[in-house]
Amino acid sequence: MSEDAGRTFYGRYIDCLNARDWGRLGLFVDPEVVHNGRPLGLAGYRAMLEQNVADIPDLRFEVVRLVVALPDLVSRLRFDCRPCGQFLGLPVNGRRVIFHEHAFYRLRDGKIGQVWSILDKDAIKATLRTSP
Amino acid sequence: MSEDAGRTFYGRYIDCLNARDWGRLGLFVDPEVVHNGRPLGLAGYRAMLEQNVADIPDLRFEVVRLVVALPDLVSRLRFDCRPCGQFLGLPVNGRRVIFHEHAFYRLRDGKIGQVWSILDKDAIKATLRTSP
Repeated sequence: MSEDAGRTFYGRYIDCLNARDWGRLGLFVDPEVVHNGRPLGLAGYRAMLEQNVADIPDLRFEVVRLVVALPDLVSRLRFDCRPCGQFLGLPVNGRRVIFHEHAFYRLRDGKIGQVWSILDKDAIKATLRTSP
Repeated sequence: MSEDAGRTFYGRYIDCLNARDWGRLGLFVDPEVVHNGRPLGLAGYRAMLEQNVADIPDLRFEVVRLVVALPDLVSRLRFDCRPCGQFLGLPVNGRRVIFHEHAFYRLRDGKIGQVWSILDKDAIKATLRTSP
């Protein structure tokens, strides 16, 4: 896979998430995927995403930076959304929050095999402080 | 700068931080550096690092993943340290904490011109819960 193909692959993966097209997730994610050290596998990874969408009905993944050096991709994602109820243990309750995620992906056989991700939870707290 | 040179450059930058060799910081950091949207400049960036070391005397930057596609570098850093007093608003008070940082760097004229960084603050909280 060339670097351009890596970018295209990642763009299609993000499109799949934004379309909630879970039946196609296996085109992008390895059956044995590991997320932050947890061996979720494809089914567990899908369950995690489905839970995210249940918690955040208007969840939309927006890639604002993407660095590709295969087999590695790293993405800075931006979220602008209104989580229902609690989100990451914070009482968001439908208020608008804006935050980022930095996710490292290691590809295996052309699919996402490992993910290391950190969310900017402090940004959510700061948003909530200014939006009582 | 080749990709290998980018890796070498970043390794020397991390060595500079771990040596607290602030007088050499300008070899790696652009005079107009911007950190998480804040135009710190070299002096402000150095002040931030000096404050970090004041808060965490045993601070050591350990690179556990590095993805290089110049002019971009992205690093997953691991910290295993004992912050004094409060750290990130948490009452650490010298207890051992282990956490990660995901930092995107954009080089400009061969030096760090922009940084976008997220810390895994939840990992620190989890450590504190298990280390009363």
